[in-house]
Amino acid sequence: MAYNAPLKDMQFLLNEVFTAESMFSTMPATNEVTEDLMTAILEEAGKIAGKLLSPINQTGDKEGCSYRDGLVITPKGFREAYADYIEGGWSGLTGEPSYGGQGMPKVISALIEEMFFSANTSFCLYTVLTTGAALTINECASEKLKKIYLPKMYQGIWSGTMCLTESHAGTDLGMINTKAVPSEKDSYHISGTKIFITAGEHDLSENIVHLVLAKLPGAPAGPRGISLFLVPKILVNEDGSLGTRNNVVCGSIENKMGIKASATCVLHFQEATGFLIGELNNGLSNLFTMMNYERLSMGLQGNGLAESSYQIALEYASERLQGRAAKGPQLVDKEADPILVHPDVRRMLLTMKVNIIAGRALSLYSSFHLDISRLHPDEHVRERSKKLVSLLVPVQKAYCSDRGFEACVLGQQVLGGHGYAAEWGLEQNVRDARIAQIYEGANGIQALDLMGRKTVRTGGEQFNLLMKEMEEFLASQKDNIDMKPYLAKFFEVKLLLVETTKLVIEKSSNNPDEVGAASYPYMELMGLTLYCFMWQRIILSAIESKKRSTDTQDYYDGLIKNGRFFLDKLLPKSLSLGEEIKAGADSLMSVTADQF
Amino acid sequence: MAYNAPLKDMQFLLNEVFTAESMFSTMPATNEVTEDLMTAILEEAGKIAGKLLSPINQTGDKEGCSYRDGLVITPKGFREAYADYIEGGWSGLTGEPSYGGQGMPKVISALIEEMFFSANTSFCLYTVLTTGAALTINECASEKLKKIYLPKMYQGIWSGTMCLTESHAGTDLGMINTKAVPSEKDSYHISGTKIFITAGEHDLSENIVHLVLAKLPGAPAGPRGISLFLVPKILVNEDGSLGTRNNVVCGSIENKMGIKASATCVLHFQEATGFLIGELNNGLSNLFTMMNYERLSMGLQGNGLAESSYQIALEYASERLQGRAAKGPQLVDKEADPILVHPDVRRMLLTMKVNIIAGRALSLYSSFHLDISRLHPDEHVRERSKKLVSLLVPVQKAYCSDRGFEACVLGQQVLGGHGYAAEWGLEQNVRDARIAQIYEGANGIQALDLMGRKTVRTGGEQFNLLMKEMEEFLASQKDNIDMKPYLAKFFEVKLLLVETTKLVIEKSSNNPDEVGAASYPYMELMGLTLYCFMWQRIILSAIESKKRSTDTQDYYDGLIKNGRFFLDKLLPKSLSLGEEIKAGADSLMSVTADQF
Repeated sequence: MAYNAPLKDMQFLLNEVFTAESMFSTMPATNEVTEDLMTAILEEAGKIAGKLLSPINQTGDKEGCSYRDGLVITPKGFREAYADYIEGGWSGLTGEPSYGGQGMPKVISALIEEMFFSANTSFCLYTVLTTGAALTINECASEKLKKIYLPKMYQGIWSGTMCLTESHAGTDLGMINTKAVPSEKDSYHISGTKIFITAGEHDLSENIVHLVLAKLPGAPAGPRGISLFLVPKILVNEDGSLGTRNNVVCGSIENKMGIKASATCVLHFQEATGFLIGELNNGLSNLFTMMNYERLSMGLQGNGLAESSYQIALEYASERLQGRAAKGPQLVDKEADPILVHPDVRRMLLTMKVNIIAGRALSLYSSFHLDISRLHPDEHVRERSKKLVSLLVPVQKAYCSDRGFEACVLGQQVLGGHGYAAEWGLEQNVRDARIAQIYEGANGIQALDLMGRKTVRTGGEQFNLLMKEMEEFLASQKDNIDMKPYLAKFFEVKLLLVETTKLVIEKSSNNPDEVGAASYPYMELMGLTLYCFMWQRIILSAIESKKRSTDTQDYYDGLIKNGRFFLDKLLPKSLSLGEEIKAGADSLMSVTADQF
Repeated sequence: MAYNAPLKDMQFLLNEVFTAESMFSTMPATNEVTEDLMTAILEEAGKIAGKLLSPINQTGDKEGCSYRDGLVITPKGFREAYADYIEGGWSGLTGEPSYGGQGMPKVISALIEEMFFSANTSFCLYTVLTTGAALTINECASEKLKKIYLPKMYQGIWSGTMCLTESHAGTDLGMINTKAVPSEKDSYHISGTKIFITAGEHDLSENIVHLVLAKLPGAPAGPRGISLFLVPKILVNEDGSLGTRNNVVCGSIENKMGIKASATCVLHFQEATGFLIGELNNGLSNLFTMMNYERLSMGLQGNGLAESSYQIALEYASERLQGRAAKGPQLVDKEADPILVHPDVRRMLLTMKVNIIAGRALSLYSSFHLDISRLHPDEHVRERSKKLVSLLVPVQKAYCSDRGFEACVLGQQVLGGHGYAAEWGLEQNVRDARIAQIYEGANGIQALDLMGRKTVRTGGEQFNLLMKEMEEFLASQKDNIDMKPYLAKFFEVKLLLVETTKLVIEKSSNNPDEVGAASYPYMELMGLTLYCFMWQRIILSAIESKKRSTDTQDYYDGLIKNGRFFLDKLLPKSLSLGEEIKAGADSLMSVTADQF
């Protein structure tokens, strides 16, 4: 079944809930981004997703990438689709205009990425890596490197990668062994082996621009001795033309659970020529900008695959006749009713739907703050959004990818045995969604980042900013009689979040293990509270729009009911998360290694 | 990594928690099943699992089954392993002694099945289907059929299947189209197409005995017009030798997410010769006996794969060096500490472990009642266990397979990127475990069976029996000072279960949709409460054994700590489940089809 971009839902969030045009009008860099322009871009992207990328999704999974003698061949149709994709200018959508990018805000590209992840996650990964690498080059590299590399990357003729992980060093990058030795002409010789490199080698682009973490001889031990280098697959001449092959070789590709059409490579660098990006020994912090964007993308992957699974599961549930409604036959002239009549099938579909909508809203909310943090003229406003982003991104990455995987599993369950068979594509979505919880910092690491670095270590500075946003919303609605049935539950869960935050900050001063012990349920409670916040805003907009509208009342009414489902059936999870956090570290840490 | 049967954990449950030998001594059919005999069998089964089945698990997944012209070829090594397996007499372990079976109780085979599912789920499925088919033949078929078929099936020379599903009829079997027309010599002509037939065709056994649901012309509509037939792949001569090929053809095998070495077949029956099992139009109830056993097996599959994932994840977490303990370096002479020092890694491993142990205990508890319901001399005792079984089986099937899948996903997460790559086998476990939630009645159907047929419809008769078991335990411990720290939480969750059961029974009399609306969280609450009950019994036995023991105090102490983890960190889920149940049907049912 071909993917159908949920334009109506996306535009409702963009225009009605977040009033994007008026927000963009406050920043010079985005004041030409009108509602009409956004609509035109989203519609076009929806066509690309449905007609170009979706048709080669299942075939790509089946064929996978193949490897031979250092070369990686992408599945049938990928080269042609990629050529069309870059021809359409999608590669430079968010790029810096002075180097040929189109300067679109992240808010727009977040929706488009969701579509592309829905339609074909493996394909989308090639493009997401290029965007991320170009962003880092634009933020941190020298003018010379920018001029050479950015225009080609924005055109998509060259693609990008991030080379961080080594076989013994994943989460703990301080341990990497890849060496950088100063060479002639401001360049370095890079030597070492990187693993799990998405799009590390393939046949879609003319050149591949690797961003590589490495250490100089005598650099400080641990994360403070890491530098970032640009290492092209093919060296580039002064005039910008391609020169000789650099000493980067793909040794193999991973055989893995999913995203089979995306090449995950082992790369050997043997005195490869590399160019320093940013300052020496400052490699990790140079990557931080990109990381916020890339991590957001992994949350979008979860949402995107959830949406794709939802569309298929809903169609199946509407057409599959099996059993009768509990209250009596609905289709009296048929042998059975569609399974959509059964409450438990509705439970699965609505769980998927309300989390997709909230996840999309949270991604937009985070994207707005990312855009503000880069583009707003007022430094104070930028700083405030930057702090919010640093708190929101780990939650969005982990919670949206967790909920995305859950939704794919639920979608598969709706189809029963047909969900387990390859034909309908739902089992592929489960396999493809699973990696979003693992890469770009496993979700446990995101939770630790949220609880430790972003909350406990700052004494809750970013957290208080977010609470203020929620409090302002609550204050603004306190006399709105229409919102009365919904606000109390939001108020309660926010209170619980504040209470548990204080508790963990307090406890952790005596026992540092309390941070890691609380981190996962804390991330989940934060995610759930944010989803609840998003639903409050959605319900409010839907109530207002319903009053104004004549022909789409039913649509808004549906959203309000969906919101109620979220509050009734999913928000209660906060109770158990609260207890789990309060239970603390003892039952985790008292177990000896032999008692596992 | 080769699977290592958890004999110590199994024997603790069998001998110390459930005191199996003394239980078996109360029934003539099992009074020769001593602790020594059980130990010998379990040790031998552990060897089969670790040395015969585990080595061909990953290779079997990679190669899969292949299909050509009606024939199915199992992966390399399967034929040889199957020959060794039946040579060892494992196929007839629980079979009826008068036809050559070994008459072992389900309690023993439940542990052995768990091992075989751990080691090689695809392989195990071939054997589980044979056992189930033989059980049905033994319970319901004529003496003549039993004499012909059972000895060969107990030897494993012939295998078995269950042919229920058709492309338009899965859950709703009343709609099947397969026809049975009376033919000469007490036989029938069976015509129709069945799908999703596990082990429907393969090269392991000389003959395949299909149990097929079909309808006679003019039979009553719906489930009351279904009859059960025995349809051999190869017809059998009067003297028991193989005759001519019957008209059953395998049309194709499914391309699916996992259990790739298990053939899932489309079978075409074209006037195939079949023999009635049991009475006409009583086919579904003839299958009920088998279903309880098969469904238990699907819960065992979940547990088995969880145990396999746990072993690998624990080894990885103990050896992978990455980052430092929050309280300071543990391995000061190494660059990093094993990730087992991190609270969040412990959370994942302990969640796996405590659910595996509770799931195993629940499977044993259900198996004991299955054995009692068949073998106890006192009819009143048999009836009581039969009622308990009818309540326990849907929970064990659904909850153990859900927790099993969750454990496999957690195990994969512990390994990060290495869990997503095929090499370590964890992604295969996730794919293999997923089907247990779907087949043999999807878990949503199990939940509906539990809440509707087994609870609401009987006014809680079976439920009250189970509550009595729990109350007796609570009463017996009320003065045990050692159990004091653990009992209160069990008491609370039991109370919540009783309260929600009453509520749903009440509400459903006004609104039949309340049953389906509550069913899934109700099944989960029941599962969680049963796991809590199992942990109470485990903690009690561990406390007692710890007092008696000198050299294994540490082992029992570990179990007590594991139990505390369950109570602290997992049991709080009951709070959200309770709220979800209480929220009722409205937010599910008020959404119109267009508002999805």
